[in-house]
Amino acid sequence: HAYVTGGSKGLGKAIAKLLASKGAHVTIIARDKDHLQIALEEIKDAAKGREDYKNLIFNAISADVTNYEDSVRALNEACDLHNGRAPDFIFCCAGACKPGLFIEQDISEFESGMQLNYHGTLYTVHVRVKRMTRQRIKGKIVLVSSVLGVMSFIGFSQYAPTKYALRGLAETLRNELLLYDISVHCYFAGTIDSPGLQQENKTKPKITSEIEGDDVALSPDQAAKALYKSLCKGHFHITSDLGGNICRVASKGAVSPTNNFIVDSLLSAFAWVCKNKINFYFVLYIL
Amino acid sequence: HAYVTGGSKGLGKAIAKLLASKGAHVTIIARDKDHLQIALEEIKDAAKGREDYKNLIFNAISADVTNYEDSVRALNEACDLHNGRAPDFIFCCAGACKPGLFIEQDISEFESGMQLNYHGTLYTVHVRVKRMTRQRIKGKIVLVSSVLGVMSFIGFSQYAPTKYALRGLAETLRNELLLYDISVHCYFAGTIDSPGLQQENKTKPKITSEIEGDDVALSPDQAAKALYKSLCKGHFHITSDLGGNICRVASKGAVSPTNNFIVDSLLSAFAWVCKNKINFYFVLYIL
Repeated sequence: HAYVTGGSKGLGKAIAKLLASKGAHVTIIARDKDHLQIALEEIKDAAKGREDYKNLIFNAISADVTNYEDSVRALNEACDLHNGRAPDFIFCCAGACKPGLFIEQDISEFESGMQLNYHGTLYTVHVRVKRMTRQRIKGKIVLVSSVLGVMSFIGFSQYAPTKYALRGLAETLRNELLLYDISVHCYFAGTIDSPGLQQENKTKPKITSEIEGDDVALSPDQAAKALYKSLCKGHFHITSDLGGNICRVASKGAVSPTNNFIVDSLLSAFAWVCKNKINFYFVLYIL
Repeated sequence: HAYVTGGSKGLGKAIAKLLASKGAHVTIIARDKDHLQIALEEIKDAAKGREDYKNLIFNAISADVTNYEDSVRALNEACDLHNGRAPDFIFCCAGACKPGLFIEQDISEFESGMQLNYHGTLYTVHVRVKRMTRQRIKGKIVLVSSVLGVMSFIGFSQYAPTKYALRGLAETLRNELLLYDISVHCYFAGTIDSPGLQQENKTKPKITSEIEGDDVALSPDQAAKALYKSLCKGHFHITSDLGGNICRVASKGAVSPTNNFIVDSLLSAFAWVCKNKINFYFVLYIL
């Protein structure tokens, strides 16, 4: 049984579809009921070819993950369909980015960004981990950070700190939840061609777009597939593109496990080059 | 003119004293009026030996940095004493840590931790940067993160994400504020023997203390001195002990500048060893 927040669009919906096609029960959480219904149909379609299709339970719950009580209610509803049993897999995909220049952005945009991206995930994880440990359910928790949770530059002061915070939460919980055999994974998503990206590009400063350059965006389905593949391998820090992988290695932290020692070491060398490239472009731009 | 939040105790007070002894005007911000008065006297004492003592302006303002309006008021009061001019140096030292096991901590402790450690700093920086840029004041902004802002383990899920978020903010603003010649610095403080530490140890889980081991705590004055020295060298990521320095190098990120290439490369090798040591102790503990 997989529980996916932000499951009505973009990456969340793509993961839900992929898991359904692999035979998982899936519950998706989002606010907008119309989008939830559309997503639920797509998820059912993805599983239709399976022999066990009739036994699979798909469910969509409208809830606001930035509200703790609502997160509790959503979990309870999801558990009720499974005889009270907590979900085995949790994917926290709800999140949004509003780029802008630091001094031009209103403080409320910083607050609402932290509330959705960090606290929205924290609430979901806290409620579920408490129930998982009570029921002694081993499982996986996937936090969706961003490449902007390992490096950042002009234009992302509203967003990057929230994704850094998620990395810090993942780093702590990876270690702490070993006690209960719950594995924690942190996905540093790169650019994904989703409704969120279109929203984001509306307020993105020109300089930010220029530094990003012709960043190749993955489709939500491609990102979901890459994430799933890494989860099967048991990676803690997960990326789905070369740029993200280089950033991951460059900032993997002191207690985070390496994915592959040789590959990671080679990428470290690239990281040094890339780092100077970003700084170089930036200096070029302001001159 | 230096502006120090959390200036009535611990690291903040030590920095305020050090800066006063070097001839800076100093404004300290904290909530408790009694502690502010005691600190203000100590700050004056630190500068008393100076010839220009009579020209120096020392000021203590009682304000709650977790409240945006109060942060605006505190800045306005500080500027009024300097003909409306914004402070040149900002040290954001207000912060607190409440260790505990993730599933045992109340969600409100996570929220208040983020509000004080992250938003408290964000508000201060946002208000001041807006005024600094309007007045075209070049200056320095020092964010106080923690070694737990570059790595984390069991017991710190309430704290580490807030310090990671500060690292993300520093990373973004270092780049963005180059536009205005404002330099941003991020201090990854290790254990400091302050009133905060005594508070912290009251709720620290046993396993967390054991992993920390006999961590040597710096006095606030030692930490302030180390921070000051690194600021003079212009370092972006600042640490004041070997453990912190190793963690900094291990997780320096993709666009953060290196402090010293050779030293940093050597430390990278140590980082690998340390990382496995921490994991080793942890596995040993839970077996």
